[in-house]
Amino acid sequence: MTKGIKIVTIGGGSSYTPELIEGFIKRYDELPVRELWLVDVEEGKEKLEIVGNLAKRMVKKSGLPINVHLTLDRREALKDADFVTTQFRVGLLDARAKDERIPLKYGVLGQETNGPGGLFKGLRTIPVILDICRDIEELCPEAWLINFTNPAGMVTEAVLRYSNIKKIVGLCNVPIGMEMGIAKLLDVDHSRIRIDFAGLNHMVYGLDVYVDGVSVKDQVIDLLSDPTNSSFVKNVAGLGWEPEFTKALNALTCPYHMYYYKTREMVEKELINYEKGETRAEVVKQLEKELFELYKDPNLDIKPPQLEQRGGAYYSDAAVRLITSIYTDKGDIQPVNTINNGAIASIPADSAVEVSCIITKDGPKPISVGDLPVPVRGLVQTIKSFERVAAEAAVTGDYDKAILALTINPLVASDKLAKQIVDEMLEAHKDYLPQFFKTVQA
Amino acid sequence: MTKGIKIVTIGGGSSYTPELIEGFIKRYDELPVRELWLVDVEEGKEKLEIVGNLAKRMVKKSGLPINVHLTLDRREALKDADFVTTQFRVGLLDARAKDERIPLKYGVLGQETNGPGGLFKGLRTIPVILDICRDIEELCPEAWLINFTNPAGMVTEAVLRYSNIKKIVGLCNVPIGMEMGIAKLLDVDHSRIRIDFAGLNHMVYGLDVYVDGVSVKDQVIDLLSDPTNSSFVKNVAGLGWEPEFTKALNALTCPYHMYYYKTREMVEKELINYEKGETRAEVVKQLEKELFELYKDPNLDIKPPQLEQRGGAYYSDAAVRLITSIYTDKGDIQPVNTINNGAIASIPADSAVEVSCIITKDGPKPISVGDLPVPVRGLVQTIKSFERVAAEAAVTGDYDKAILALTINPLVASDKLAKQIVDEMLEAHKDYLPQFFKTVQA
Amino acid sequence: MTKGIKIVTIGGGSSYTPELIEGFIKRYDELPVRELWLVDVEEGKEKLEIVGNLAKRMVKKSGLPINVHLTLDRREALKDADFVTTQFRVGLLDARAKDERIPLKYGVLGQETNGPGGLFKGLRTIPVILDICRDIEELCPEAWLINFTNPAGMVTEAVLRYSNIKKIVGLCNVPIGMEMGIAKLLDVDHSRIRIDFAGLNHMVYGLDVYVDGVSVKDQVIDLLSDPTNSSFVKNVAGLGWEPEFTKALNALTCPYHMYYYKTREMVEKELINYEKGETRAEVVKQLEKELFELYKDPNLDIKPPQLEQRGGAYYSDAAVRLITSIYTDKGDIQPVNTINNGAIASIPADSAVEVSCIITKDGPKPISVGDLPVPVRGLVQTIKSFERVAAEAAVTGDYDKAILALTINPLVASDKLAKQIVDEMLEAHKDYLPQFFKTVQA
Amino acid sequence: MTKGIKIVTIGGGSSYTPELIEGFIKRYDELPVRELWLVDVEEGKEKLEIVGNLAKRMVKKSGLPINVHLTLDRREALKDADFVTTQFRVGLLDARAKDERIPLKYGVLGQETNGPGGLFKGLRTIPVILDICRDIEELCPEAWLINFTNPAGMVTEAVLRYSNIKKIVGLCNVPIGMEMGIAKLLDVDHSRIRIDFAGLNHMVYGLDVYVDGVSVKDQVIDLLSDPTNSSFVKNVAGLGWEPEFTKALNALTCPYHMYYYKTREMVEKELINYEKGETRAEVVKQLEKELFELYKDPNLDIKPPQLEQRGGAYYSDAAVRLITSIYTDKGDIQPVNTINNGAIASIPADSAVEVSCIITKDGPKPISVGDLPVPVRGLVQTIKSFERVAAEAAVTGDYDKAILALTINPLVASDKLAKQIVDEMLEAHKDYLPQFFKTVQA
Ligand SMILES: [Mn+2]
Ligand SMILES: [Mn+2]
Ligand SMILES: [Mn+2]
Ligand SMILES: [Mn+2]
Repeated sequence: MTKGIKIVTIGGGSSYTPELIEGFIKRYDELPVRELWLVDVEEGKEKLEIVGNLAKRMVKKSGLPINVHLTLDRREALKDADFVTTQFRVGLLDARAKDERIPLKYGVLGQETNGPGGLFKGLRTIPVILDICRDIEELCPEAWLINFTNPAGMVTEAVLRYSNIKKIVGLCNVPIGMEMGIAKLLDVDHSRIRIDFAGLNHMVYGLDVYVDGVSVKDQVIDLLSDPTNSSFVKNVAGLGWEPEFTKALNALTCPYHMYYYKTREMVEKELINYEKGETRAEVVKQLEKELFELYKDPNLDIKPPQLEQRGGAYYSDAAVRLITSIYTDKGDIQPVNTINNGAIASIPADSAVEVSCIITKDGPKPISVGDLPVPVRGLVQTIKSFERVAAEAAVTGDYDKAILALTINPLVASDKLAKQIVDEMLEAHKDYLPQFFKTVQA
Repeated sequence: MTKGIKIVTIGGGSSYTPELIEGFIKRYDELPVRELWLVDVEEGKEKLEIVGNLAKRMVKKSGLPINVHLTLDRREALKDADFVTTQFRVGLLDARAKDERIPLKYGVLGQETNGPGGLFKGLRTIPVILDICRDIEELCPEAWLINFTNPAGMVTEAVLRYSNIKKIVGLCNVPIGMEMGIAKLLDVDHSRIRIDFAGLNHMVYGLDVYVDGVSVKDQVIDLLSDPTNSSFVKNVAGLGWEPEFTKALNALTCPYHMYYYKTREMVEKELINYEKGETRAEVVKQLEKELFELYKDPNLDIKPPQLEQRGGAYYSDAAVRLITSIYTDKGDIQPVNTINNGAIASIPADSAVEVSCIITKDGPKPISVGDLPVPVRGLVQTIKSFERVAAEAAVTGDYDKAILALTINPLVASDKLAKQIVDEMLEAHKDYLPQFFKTVQA
Repeated sequence: MTKGIKIVTIGGGSSYTPELIEGFIKRYDELPVRELWLVDVEEGKEKLEIVGNLAKRMVKKSGLPINVHLTLDRREALKDADFVTTQFRVGLLDARAKDERIPLKYGVLGQETNGPGGLFKGLRTIPVILDICRDIEELCPEAWLINFTNPAGMVTEAVLRYSNIKKIVGLCNVPIGMEMGIAKLLDVDHSRIRIDFAGLNHMVYGLDVYVDGVSVKDQVIDLLSDPTNSSFVKNVAGLGWEPEFTKALNALTCPYHMYYYKTREMVEKELINYEKGETRAEVVKQLEKELFELYKDPNLDIKPPQLEQRGGAYYSDAAVRLITSIYTDKGDIQPVNTINNGAIASIPADSAVEVSCIITKDGPKPISVGDLPVPVRGLVQTIKSFERVAAEAAVTGDYDKAILALTINPLVASDKLAKQIVDEMLEAHKDYLPQFFKTVQA
Repeated sequence: MTKGIKIVTIGGGSSYTPELIEGFIKRYDELPVRELWLVDVEEGKEKLEIVGNLAKRMVKKSGLPINVHLTLDRREALKDADFVTTQFRVGLLDARAKDERIPLKYGVLGQETNGPGGLFKGLRTIPVILDICRDIEELCPEAWLINFTNPAGMVTEAVLRYSNIKKIVGLCNVPIGMEMGIAKLLDVDHSRIRIDFAGLNHMVYGLDVYVDGVSVKDQVIDLLSDPTNSSFVKNVAGLGWEPEFTKALNALTCPYHMYYYKTREMVEKELINYEKGETRAEVVKQLEKELFELYKDPNLDIKPPQLEQRGGAYYSDAAVRLITSIYTDKGDIQPVNTINNGAIASIPADSAVEVSCIITKDGPKPISVGDLPVPVRGLVQTIKSFERVAAEAAVTGDYDKAILALTINPLVASDKLAKQIVDEMLEAHKDYLPQFFKTVQA
């Protein structure tokens, strides 16, 4: 890395890219990026051009010596990379719409990470990621792979288990969002908050929370148990927790817990959106269309403020923060998806977990959690079972395993429903799931 | 135990007692019972008399020197006991009817062991069992406590965690029923079948199955995946498994798994019974009524064959088999609920599990399982979380913990539903839950 | 196995073989051996002939239809075997003499299993065993490998870790000897004693001891703490334990513990024998010479009683008992070396341990031990570290690892001594350690 | 802590105190100490006066508003303390001399932490520490206890296991010394070195070593394997490691490993000193005498440079650094003794370990190590067994346990020697071991 840093962003045509660019510009003093390669596939060529040109204008405005390259040739880009970030979406938003809508037809939440939607996103994504891993092994074996592509937990598990790449970190904006929510709740600056995170991606808990290093967990639990603190607790679905549940759980939930601890209410809510044709994919599709219209403006040379409404806020910022800490061996604490290595007692040492880590040049080092609190141990283990069966199905194209993955998923919990949903979704996503159709033909 | 064995059966007025008597008579050569004390509470006095007199007639017919005592004085009975069996039902079948019916009002399965019904059965039962444990500690500290009272897993967990009694075994007829089902499926004698059991009570899996010691797991999985083998697989609910699920799971399920892997179908089925007023409690109530009519017949001196239709077949037989193996230090393999001691890797060493054990005079010794197969690890951990939170609620009378227990239970999976169900059930079972109402008053 | 059983004994020319033959004859009803192949190497041809002919005379006398084959062609013998037993000694007794004498020159115990002698016996033996494993994989993949070749723990570890053979059991007569010693001490029949064994080969502890299933541990510990009970406690070296040590340890030691808990006394004792040229190898060499003279007698058709003085009593008997229990799926408890699978908490699940197991047709199933008692946990872990580093050195021929293995061994505990001993022993055993000299040449 | 910090130093009359004072003065900006109480016992009154007056002169010179109090009343001092440091020596240097000399009479290393000397230092120290813990619980329950009193590992284990104090950190200068040694070896500034520490106190390994976050382990192992790098590797005893051992171990050793991996050489070396009457205690005694002469000089108002030759360099500095990081919630990495909480897989979660931790206001949080490398796992477990048996002996005064502790210690490895040494040392330290003599009288 002596001559400056080479970063490769796969899925570079994503609407998030301007935030990433902004991040690199802001942190240039610590993280002197020399080359930034934005890579995309044929299907995303137009978006790549639009976003890439905005990126170039942003860099130009900054006056920094960062070279931005746009390419469809992934292998050319990867050569000697220092960091590879992945933020692509196999099948684009149309696929997401199917992930959400098909399960709802059966009265089941799609849930794009740990539910049926997540299973199918994983089935589409994991083979591509493993392919990228093979390229990294050959072309830039010392590079760190920073993955934001969902389902990030399942993807990290699959890379650890089915590739030779060990330098992977899975990244999510949920923990940072929880910290910001707590900061707002307590009316203190975000920098003063620290949470002990433990669990899995989109199934992470805050086991303790500190202001300036002093635990304020009891106070926070009390506040969260107060139904009038709606701004924080209703963050996903406009639904608050029952105070008795919050008190007895005695840990901070993440927004995605709504799907598992409020399943019926979430189904009802999403079914209403479903009827109206307003699932998340549709909303995002419209937002993205508007964003790309903005990005086309040749006078735009900053990240447009409208991007923050896109959702996924802080994702790219978290990525740049992580890359900076690795590059500078900073030793700060960040919650990421990494190999467990004993941090959580009842999860295998070689599985991926999402925990607070010290970020060093040698990668994230998890802080020991010990055993998870009794009430949360079950659900975390369940989602880990789901992730592992799903990852195995993705790699093998095993139809039975895909059905098993959904049957053991608490959002489905029925072998019959699992089969119906798998059948319909396999058909719907056929073009992106060659591993399953190859198997069937053989 | 030199002068013969003293056995105390708490809940002696149960309709199962004649099977127990028959068991003691049949195994007298190995297990020379000298005294059998049938204990019940005031509420069950009449039943105790009826069953007790039948027991006496059965013993008389056998010509064996077994003394049968009937008493309402538990402490008098426990003095110097060698084995204490517990098979009582706090609140009788009326309570069970509530356990089943109230959750169904909310569209949730009652499930009398690992669901909301099981929570409330546990809340009623655990304080009584712990009270018995205190008596055992004082009056017969060397005795083995053989518990068949459901929820047997939660009860065993509570005794291990909240009493000083270490000599407890929890017993269930589910594993023996699985062996018999497999024997029938393979058309071989039951004695030739052995299953490696692992999991929790009513959440137990067969990890391997042998005929004469040779694994026939692949064959059995194939047979179970064949929808025409209806007699075995439809054993609980008339519903068969999807063959893909069975193959990918690659383990034998127990009947209670229907509730967790076919939740929606089971809810629909039970709601139909609910509408008709035909939940299990109602059916059993009628059966029991008929049985007690039979038992009253002063000419009856055998276990009436009708008892086998009662359900719970083999329960008492399994109990006598277990007691015999402990008494004779037999060293045979039986699946029971006992302290884990590392047998299942991801469950705490001091928790109760249901696993194949060697039965010795020193108690059951679990055979090491190692880690559970990935697909089942999650649900087992989840039910263990449920059992532990529920047991804690039972001991403390903590309302919030009761709500937490139901929220993390996959049959409920909603804090709001959990609260509604807990509220209605607490009120309905008020008379048997003093620990909660004491708390409220304080 | 329908037509009778085929057994292959590698190292068939061993002086122990007559005991094995006697065992097969005595247990023929349960274990109908059809073919017994005694295999040896060119170097042992003469002994094979002598022992083989005695074996044939013994079988003839029995009138049983067992065919005894003598061969130097291991692969011919292995074809379709049901059980393979290994009892060979690479380098014969001359090698053992070196294993014992060279370390003593440096004031260090040779200790033929867990000390420097054991390291070199392992370095010579493991490559041969792994070669046999490759043959088994090809020629009789369903066979069970029953290994008595020392160091049995290290060999079992190596087979589990570096071969594809999973059906291996390591066997030792130490546990059975401990049971017999306790039986004698308590003056009860051996069949009434059961010990809960846990640890490693030649580093096994009795964690509890029962007569007729009732723990008599306190009584036994008291007896063992009584210095007048010399017959049991002085079993290896004529040295008794300090009573305070025995009481505080609160577990039964095995004879080999003398080397680790009485190191200085054992060194002094062996140095005296060393000076006199009377280390164990010399003694055994003389005994064997006498035994083979006896075996040559064409009128001898029984196991000569003198064999019992050879040491290693019950070894072959234990082997036949084990084979019988596997063949008949007996389900009795026997202490053997097998894969840990979680039985001992702080030892890896995939390592070999010596624990009480249920013996089934599917192999030994360890009974869960949980965590070892605090005082013994360290030494067991240390010997496991030694076994693993030693096994790795044996497979790789890595000189540095051989030195590391001895340095971490508590009998050596010096890197300088380790190097001196390794250097001299490598040279002395050069002919049997090609893996080390190939490396050096390269 | 709003009004400034109150620090209590038990054993305030120690010769190390000036370094502590210097540390507080240097870090005042970060760590505004308001009150510093130096506490000692009657026996140490004179030293306390001398050191205390020097401390006051140092503070005066600094011009900082730190109040230094000298007292023999520990309870008065502890009231509302924020940090309590313990650096006392029960029985003073005369006791150390016995710890060293008596074992050497038997040809055994005294080793003042993990050997016989450490056992007896633990037996004298642990009851006093537990007494201090009871005072802390009552008088300053929120205080952190920072213990440097050896044997620091055993003491931390005892506090975690036998007191109600959870806020304890055990501190040692060995890890910092290793970092400095490596820095020197690589000729880089100490601040650029980071080591992944794991193990126990005085039995700690460096599992990886980084310069500016980049692993240089291979280079360091090579350098350490080079016998010409004598300045680092001969740090304890003038003895270097065999290069083969260092390479195969593939981890950094600490100086105390010489006792376990070079036992014979160390015994020989210490026996020579023993004969000359020059064991460490004698040397230190002379050094201390000289230091106190210096301290008496009323014109001295700085830490005299001669203190650095005392040994124990960086101890007090490490303490001030630790206290500062706790107070300021710094989040830097420091190696300390704390509760394992799963950081090292094969050590119980509730035991003390010495590992790299993140230091926060909520205390040290260990970074997950996973399982220790195979070659070091055994010795670490052995010393943990020793520490636990020793701590139990210290608390109970159980004579048999004291003998057991020494028998399982690899430096003794003989029950007979253990008994002889325990007997002579109990008598020699009689005045400081009331728990043993009370037992004998009863
Ligand atoms: Mn995310
Ligand atoms: Mn049951
Ligand atoms: Mn042996
Ligand atoms: Mn130290």
